[in-house]
Amino acid sequence: MKHPIVPALAACLTAAAAIAQPAAPAAAPSPGEVIAAAPAADWQAIPAADILLLEFAGNRRVVLQLAPAFAPTHVANIRALVKDGWFPRHAQIVRVQENYVVQWGDPTEKAPIPAAIVARPADGYEQPGKPAGFAALPWPDAYGAVVGHAGGWPAATDGQAHWLPHCPGMLGVGRNMAPDTGTGAELYVVIGHGPRHLDRNIALVGRVLEGIEHLSALPRGTAALGMYDRPEQRIPLVSARLAADLPPAEQPRFQVLVGESLATWAGVRANRRDAFFNRPAGGADICNLMPPLRRAPQAK
Amino acid sequence: MKHPIVPALAACLTAAAAIAQPAAPAAAPSPGEVIAAAPAADWQAIPAADILLLEFAGNRRVVLQLAPAFAPTHVANIRALVKDGWFPRHAQIVRVQENYVVQWGDPTEKAPIPAAIVARPADGYEQPGKPAGFAALPWPDAYGAVVGHAGGWPAATDGQAHWLPHCPGMLGVGRNMAPDTGTGAELYVVIGHGPRHLDRNIALVGRVLEGIEHLSALPRGTAALGMYDRPEQRIPLVSARLAADLPPAEQPRFQVLVGESLATWAGVRANRRDAFFNRPAGGADICNLMPPLRRAPQAK
Repeated sequence: MKHPIVPALAACLTAAAAIAQPAAPAAAPSPGEVIAAAPAADWQAIPAADILLLEFAGNRRVVLQLAPAFAPTHVANIRALVKDGWFPRHAQIVRVQENYVVQWGDPTEKAPIPAAIVARPADGYEQPGKPAGFAALPWPDAYGAVVGHAGGWPAATDGQAHWLPHCPGMLGVGRNMAPDTGTGAELYVVIGHGPRHLDRNIALVGRVLEGIEHLSALPRGTAALGMYDRPEQRIPLVSARLAADLPPAEQPRFQVLVGESLATWAGVRANRRDAFFNRPAGGADICNLMPPLRRAPQAK
Repeated sequence: MKHPIVPALAACLTAAAAIAQPAAPAAAPSPGEVIAAAPAADWQAIPAADILLLEFAGNRRVVLQLAPAFAPTHVANIRALVKDGWFPRHAQIVRVQENYVVQWGDPTEKAPIPAAIVARPADGYEQPGKPAGFAALPWPDAYGAVVGHAGGWPAATDGQAHWLPHCPGMLGVGRNMAPDTGTGAELYVVIGHGPRHLDRNIALVGRVLEGIEHLSALPRGTAALGMYDRPEQRIPLVSARLAADLPPAEQPRFQVLVGESLATWAGVRANRRDAFFNRPAGGADICNLMPPLRRAPQAK
């Protein structure tokens, strides 16, 4: 290490590398092999009450998972908006910004919000303490947090509070300048390199499970901030349902990798020694360690 | 910090935060204000010999910058392929993988390569020592490198060697399983969260200056690895020229932010204290600190 500007940091990086190396022996499996070998107990079912099914015009179907443990009031708001039928009445995709976000909401910003909605929920930005079942990764984080996994989610903590990180596919709540605005009626999905500077500044409330390509491959908006400024560019949200409200046989069922299998997978992702890789990195970004997902068999 | 699993790392993160904090006082400008205030001396012209103009079918124009300092033989190969007219004769977009890459090359893999091309260039994966003019960032890197900027590029080093990091918009060289294959005839651009585990495993040779939305918003390939397996899906590369080969008045001119202005910009990006931000991060990922670009006036 020959960078006198940051000697303390260079020592830290050496320490981090020393921590990371034992995670993957020379004959390590590939990440895909770890997933294939995971026992059923390491595949955690995602509750149907947390699965949000959106259909945008043009048969663009996107399946999301809500995160009530990280953003309880925002998620309650979103469920109430779904129950009310508010989204298909009012929401359209209004913004597609390159390497940033796809956002939908009420372009008029005038549609009445149902009375059940909490106007300024404060608990979706961060939660106190460590997340339940947190497993920290042994690598540093450019944003100064300790990052890892908890309950099938990526998570970040400073020891005092914890929060979801802004990674590709994460679902966030558009807000105005005041920090506690944003009900959940205006939502966005991250596309592109994770804008982690938004962590704790904007509430995150879930993630995409399936169909992100229906958002990420949309034409970029040409107005400032990627806005679709002409009404004909906008893409209506034609349907929003919770999986739990469907007949059981029609509910999509997803599982997320957790436990030892997830930790092993993260270790081999960070230390690729399978074919093609000649230089194991010795670390990995939390946004490249989003917990693997799979469809589970339908109920019979 | 209450994470006994990684106490050394927690101490490091605290140290990193302590380093980072002074970079942005409470009344810091926004990143955009730093860019607007940068003196002309901090805008470095990009050489016309390094600017590659690609046009894909459908008027999809993408402007790239080649990086001869980081990948001299690969860049020489690409220039020779341009001079030969090889790309429009043979290359098509053959792969668009979600949150990963857009790749173009010869789908037949049988087109003859001009004799001037070096078949197995070895110098584009990493270069010895530190990059010239390297300015390290004071924040840690999940991949165990010291990251920063050099000559208007993002750069990473371990003190022994240096390399370009796999960030969105970076231009890489497709290769076969053998580590020194890949001439530059098959190229890809990163779309999505930077796949930094590819650093040093694949040669990076440049970056997109303008028009990445013509690549990142393409329909995702539905075959394995996002391949366009049906020939009619593929998008021909109809023109490939170097700016230096155009009449001066037709050469696009770009400048990249360098020097003190770039360092100040990185500091305020990592410590947003302008409106909307309530929680400065105290750090930032190198892939969210790609040096700002602008068009310069055309020659008269």
